[in-house]
Amino acid sequence: MKETDLINQITPSFYRQSSVVTGIGDDGAVIKPPNGHELVIVADAMIEDVHFSLNYMNLSDVGHRVLAANVSDLIAMGSKPLYYIITLGVPSDYNHKDIQLLYDGLNQLAKVYNMDLIGGDTTSSNKLMISITAFGSVLPNRKRLRSQADAGDVVFVTGYLGESGYGLHLLNDQIDEDYFINRHKRPVPRQDFLYASEPLSRVCLNDISDGISTELNEIAEASLVNIEINYESLPVHEEMKKLNSTFLKELILSAGEDFELVGTCSVQEWKQLEQSCQKLNIPIKSIGTVTSSSSTPKVNLIEGDQITLLDRKGYEHS
Amino acid sequence: MKETDLINQITPSFYRQSSVVTGIGDDGAVIKPPNGHELVIVADAMIEDVHFSLNYMNLSDVGHRVLAANVSDLIAMGSKPLYYIITLGVPSDYNHKDIQLLYDGLNQLAKVYNMDLIGGDTTSSNKLMISITAFGSVLPNRKRLRSQADAGDVVFVTGYLGESGYGLHLLNDQIDEDYFINRHKRPVPRQDFLYASEPLSRVCLNDISDGISTELNEIAEASLVNIEINYESLPVHEEMKKLNSTFLKELILSAGEDFELVGTCSVQEWKQLEQSCQKLNIPIKSIGTVTSSSSTPKVNLIEGDQITLLDRKGYEHS
Repeated sequence: MKETDLINQITPSFYRQSSVVTGIGDDGAVIKPPNGHELVIVADAMIEDVHFSLNYMNLSDVGHRVLAANVSDLIAMGSKPLYYIITLGVPSDYNHKDIQLLYDGLNQLAKVYNMDLIGGDTTSSNKLMISITAFGSVLPNRKRLRSQADAGDVVFVTGYLGESGYGLHLLNDQIDEDYFINRHKRPVPRQDFLYASEPLSRVCLNDISDGISTELNEIAEASLVNIEINYESLPVHEEMKKLNSTFLKELILSAGEDFELVGTCSVQEWKQLEQSCQKLNIPIKSIGTVTSSSSTPKVNLIEGDQITLLDRKGYEHS
Repeated sequence: MKETDLINQITPSFYRQSSVVTGIGDDGAVIKPPNGHELVIVADAMIEDVHFSLNYMNLSDVGHRVLAANVSDLIAMGSKPLYYIITLGVPSDYNHKDIQLLYDGLNQLAKVYNMDLIGGDTTSSNKLMISITAFGSVLPNRKRLRSQADAGDVVFVTGYLGESGYGLHLLNDQIDEDYFINRHKRPVPRQDFLYASEPLSRVCLNDISDGISTELNEIAEASLVNIEINYESLPVHEEMKKLNSTFLKELILSAGEDFELVGTCSVQEWKQLEQSCQKLNIPIKSIGTVTSSSSTPKVNLIEGDQITLLDRKGYEHS
């Protein structure tokens, strides 16, 4: 299909955000970011048979999922989603209906977050490739960086861990359990957390894209702190507790792609955050503490009376 | 190679633009666009064996070229280049040296335009894939849109046409003519045109990425005007005048990828633009006129006493 047709097909008839000055239709888009705000820019790409398979996901799922990954990054920076740009590599046998399905998935999620598609590029490729750059706005003193953890902080996590990884496992085994499979195919980033955490003066935040072991190590390294978490405190769905304990541990510590949030805040503000989350129906749980500042940052996992060192991959070292 | 290694390898040690609040190293970058300016966002992707071949381009050329395509779009919007974000799909057999070469090409051009790499994503893929989103700033009344052509305008073009296409032809035939080959491998977008055109109250502008036939039709359609250009006025390098006339015409009208600029301005401001370009050593030439407003926009090509209708592909219809 021709690029001009494709562009016409996905050009929106209106823009939800008033800060879009010029959308699709020129060499570039023009925006006027909201006054007093900073602009957050994130990027996340997915390639067929690397990040997803069309054997178990349809094109609408794929569209939803890649935008969800970007929205999750925006939220993890504390920013309100605004717009996105998409670069598509489209196999030659795709038709208008395929592109419409992909776009439906993108647009359904974009609508939830009031986001606009403001530009992009399309090209041919062997495998479907989708690269998104997404934009959000944030007040300078409400940025939520991974470098903002302090000694004494409570470490928290939203939702339940390992659900997306378990969903993928079920898909691969062709077992039909809609809840977990949807957690993999159609993750919904926690925009409400922005409102719940808005009053807090300081929140250190990461989204769980690569597994909690990676995210906690990133926080420790960026903030130069040591972190200690309790394995028994990690939130797990009742249904998953029946799984083989080694497999369960792997899912919890390393699977990622849940697009839940992990972060830290002061003990003083933790109660407030817990209450705000409860009001907004966001499951949130304290899972450990930031024990100390450190020039050799590390993450310890406590399980019973055992303490092990948790590396980025989720492997434990004694 | 590991993604964290790759990110460390390409993370700059400093940022040239003071409007970068937070660069690489968190879930996203944070910028504070210059006061009173709007932000222009462009995107352009290149995939191995679709847009380039590593048989005749090295990885540094590839890096240069994909960023040049984006910079060219920024300039065509009238905006000053600021930053870029890159998504890389890297084949599994690439090593650090390969990535460094690619990055050298990007960085050499970024330095010329004072641009910063502020973020991105990397993933594995079969073929090398590079997707760039680039950012520029522009004063609201200095945007150069393709919808800004008016009846009576002079139509102009910078540089010479078809050089990049001729360079690609020489490469495919393994003929060594450095000048044209470099025009294909290492095009240099015309940032100086921003300064030359800065005093003009209105400029309609496109960069020549897809061939002048496409660009002129885009201008006609976006501005709702008819355009007439003279084939004999189109600027051609002396050396290329020796070519077979059919082949030459194809190169001039359709080859594109020169990343020169085509646009229109009022007759009153044309003299001023011509003089400013002369001072800055930018070759610029009047090639025709915007003849009238039109609800059925078209582009006519005059050659001797023949007038033909020029479509987007560069085909002529009588």
